[in-house]
Amino acid sequence: MAYFDAASATPLHPVARQALSASLDEGWADPARLYREGRKARLLLDASREAAAEAVGCRADEVVFTSSGTRAVHRGVAGALAGRRRVGRHLIVSSVEHSSVLHSAEAFEADGGTVTRVAVDRAGAVDPAGYAAALRADTALACLQSANHEVGTAQPVAEVAEVCRAAGVPLLVDAAQSLGWGPVEGDWSLLAASAHKWGGPSGVGLLVVRKGVRFAAQGPVDERESGRAPGFENIPAIVAAVASLRAVRAEAAQEAVRLRELTERIRARVPELVPDVEVVGDAVRRLPGIVTFSCLYVDGEALLHELDRAGFSVSSGSSCTSSTLTPSHVLKAMGVLSEGNVRVSLPPGTAEADVERFLEVLPGAVAGVREKLGAPAPVTRGGPRELLVDSLGKRCPIPVIELAKVFGRVPVGGTVRVLSDDEAARLDIPAWCEMRGQEYVGEEPAQRGTAYLVRRVS
Amino acid sequence: MAYFDAASATPLHPVARQALSASLDEGWADPARLYREGRKARLLLDASREAAAEAVGCRADEVVFTSSGTRAVHRGVAGALAGRRRVGRHLIVSSVEHSSVLHSAEAFEADGGTVTRVAVDRAGAVDPAGYAAALRADTALACLQSANHEVGTAQPVAEVAEVCRAAGVPLLVDAAQSLGWGPVEGDWSLLAASAHKWGGPSGVGLLVVRKGVRFAAQGPVDERESGRAPGFENIPAIVAAVASLRAVRAEAAQEAVRLRELTERIRARVPELVPDVEVVGDAVRRLPGIVTFSCLYVDGEALLHELDRAGFSVSSGSSCTSSTLTPSHVLKAMGVLSEGNVRVSLPPGTAEADVERFLEVLPGAVAGVREKLGAPAPVTRGGPRELLVDSLGKRCPIPVIELAKVFGRVPVGGTVRVLSDDEAARLDIPAWCEMRGQEYVGEEPAQRGTAYLVRRVS
Repeated sequence: MAYFDAASATPLHPVARQALSASLDEGWADPARLYREGRKARLLLDASREAAAEAVGCRADEVVFTSSGTRAVHRGVAGALAGRRRVGRHLIVSSVEHSSVLHSAEAFEADGGTVTRVAVDRAGAVDPAGYAAALRADTALACLQSANHEVGTAQPVAEVAEVCRAAGVPLLVDAAQSLGWGPVEGDWSLLAASAHKWGGPSGVGLLVVRKGVRFAAQGPVDERESGRAPGFENIPAIVAAVASLRAVRAEAAQEAVRLRELTERIRARVPELVPDVEVVGDAVRRLPGIVTFSCLYVDGEALLHELDRAGFSVSSGSSCTSSTLTPSHVLKAMGVLSEGNVRVSLPPGTAEADVERFLEVLPGAVAGVREKLGAPAPVTRGGPRELLVDSLGKRCPIPVIELAKVFGRVPVGGTVRVLSDDEAARLDIPAWCEMRGQEYVGEEPAQRGTAYLVRRVS
Repeated sequence: MAYFDAASATPLHPVARQALSASLDEGWADPARLYREGRKARLLLDASREAAAEAVGCRADEVVFTSSGTRAVHRGVAGALAGRRRVGRHLIVSSVEHSSVLHSAEAFEADGGTVTRVAVDRAGAVDPAGYAAALRADTALACLQSANHEVGTAQPVAEVAEVCRAAGVPLLVDAAQSLGWGPVEGDWSLLAASAHKWGGPSGVGLLVVRKGVRFAAQGPVDERESGRAPGFENIPAIVAAVASLRAVRAEAAQEAVRLRELTERIRARVPELVPDVEVVGDAVRRLPGIVTFSCLYVDGEALLHELDRAGFSVSSGSSCTSSTLTPSHVLKAMGVLSEGNVRVSLPPGTAEADVERFLEVLPGAVAGVREKLGAPAPVTRGGPRELLVDSLGKRCPIPVIELAKVFGRVPVGGTVRVLSDDEAARLDIPAWCEMRGQEYVGEEPAQRGTAYLVRRVS
């Protein structure tokens, strides 16, 4: 049994568990009260804030504890936008942000704001020039993740922060995936993070607002957390979260090397072991523990089930029921294959033997799913110059499977027209062409759905 | 050492601690994931929802877990108001609601809504007729607490719910103080509660939205908790919260009788032991564990310090640093004395001996504070027909102490004019008159502050 979905949540770190248990006795009371129990709670809260600030690299009075990373993002984005309302109502985000940032952007648009979504390259990284081009006189805020949650690609945060700083625009960094590995470099203005990503308990997020950043908390307020996060403080969980952050940081340098070697092994071996696979995300500038690949002719959810049966817990950017946006907005923005997508994210301490066993199990699991779906047999020669594949009403990866099945029947120079009404086909058919070295001609509206044209070039 | 501030927060119930510890191993993963760890988390979450629904008396799919009681109120009020925006933008609250409700109302007003605050009687209770009178054609929502957090007075929720139901207006009940004692009676539409009030951990609130109630979640959304509470679910804490609710409910009937007897004892004995005390709140229709009294010529914060030194943790509605609203908006709305206010709220299991020791310690603590503040000596006869007391720049209880000091010097029929610029004087001088059986003539604007006129009638 191996849990390879650390990017989603990690089990509680033993240090966090110990800290939680101890502070349940000392930290349950209201830290605003003046009596003994309140003072004890206040001391724990203050000490946690100091320690969190040290780990982030900021002042203690810049740290706000929230009830989740999502909440830190929601409150951070809304507060920063409102604080600079006079400047304007324009927001910049990358197109591969976490859904909490994108949902904040959507809420802002619904409220009359304007949002620019900065594109990424095929590895999932933004270009600082993209941010520079997006900045306007009325830009109130820019957001960028420190590293991508689906493919692990690290973003050029320091460079983007510099571009924003030069324009006088604050940058909010979603550091959910990276804070356990180290502080975020660069001159950012706001930062959000989530404790259960670094072995802390659920129920704790971190919002950092640098001094001098205009910030106007939105919604009903109270006096807790400098008026920036209403509701009774969850002190035992905060203590545990910070203890865990310190613990994982102490092991980070060593563990990063080890996990990087393991994910490197997966990156290199999967394409050797499994035919028709695309490993996605930056090979070098990336988080140590994440590796993501997509398998042609595979239904992501079915593959997750196969792997779960074999004792491996992984996630998929193409599995509807486990993701907000289907198909994965990240893979879509990168322009890579989304079908049969698997994200492996190794928690610290992952045993090498578990990774080896995963590599043993994976080829059979993929082959099993492909067989059930009727994936294509090897290519044959000859046949008509143009073929029509009617995949209306069929969900991906069926349209791509059907395309591949008939593709060998058209001669070089011939075309296949695929009719599909599944949105994912728009992403997956061009991706299949790129992987296969075939020409994607383009799409045309059809009576029902869309027609995708592919020309055989080899 | 005795902790008598259960209305603020309670230590973790042993059952909650056990449940928390156990579910840290089983409930840390993302319940939206399809793998083993995710399914286990989902099972725990579903079971908790069923159990919470049973304790509340509603359907499981009507229960939303939030990250605090405050958050449940904020989201509940905002969602219900938005859901009925077409009907109108009028909100009804009682004047003694918890600050989370009042802050929601203020945010609604800032956004262009209209709020009616229903008055309470001297015991702190609303009259259903007051809600009936406040209802308008454009009323979107009414809010009423099940019982008051500062004085323990129970509200006529079932009657108010009926009045609202007849007008087609949903009623949101803030059940934070009472849910541990039993379900809320009546045909309410929404309910909010907070786990750390019933021995659950911090970080868990409960929002119930009855089927058929129009509700539009505000702010950025995600797919968690039926789109009504974004952010990763805190399952171990939820499991512990619900386990604790069941545990305290099992002991509730018996413990209510015992605590009621103890608070009855405090209600009866404090006025015998301490001169110039007013016990506030309904003597009969009230929570079992709360008793509140105000002491003339006493600074609430100083008294809390004295009691803390003597080993008792209590809170005060008149202590600035431990409360959002100063002086207590509850005592103000009731028209009772706010100075030297002490709220004793006994946690389940409070030992009789601790209450007896509190009654032993209290008279000396009050006397000590009064002595330091120079409280008045017994009344003398004769003197001029009108006296002026200049208390400008002095904080309550000093204005009342100075009034009382000179009062004996004016003959019956004479008046004392107190100049004060402390807002609390507006409440405390009339309250002093009522307690003393003297006539409060009224207030007049003065060059600085306000002049309060008191006529001696006995």
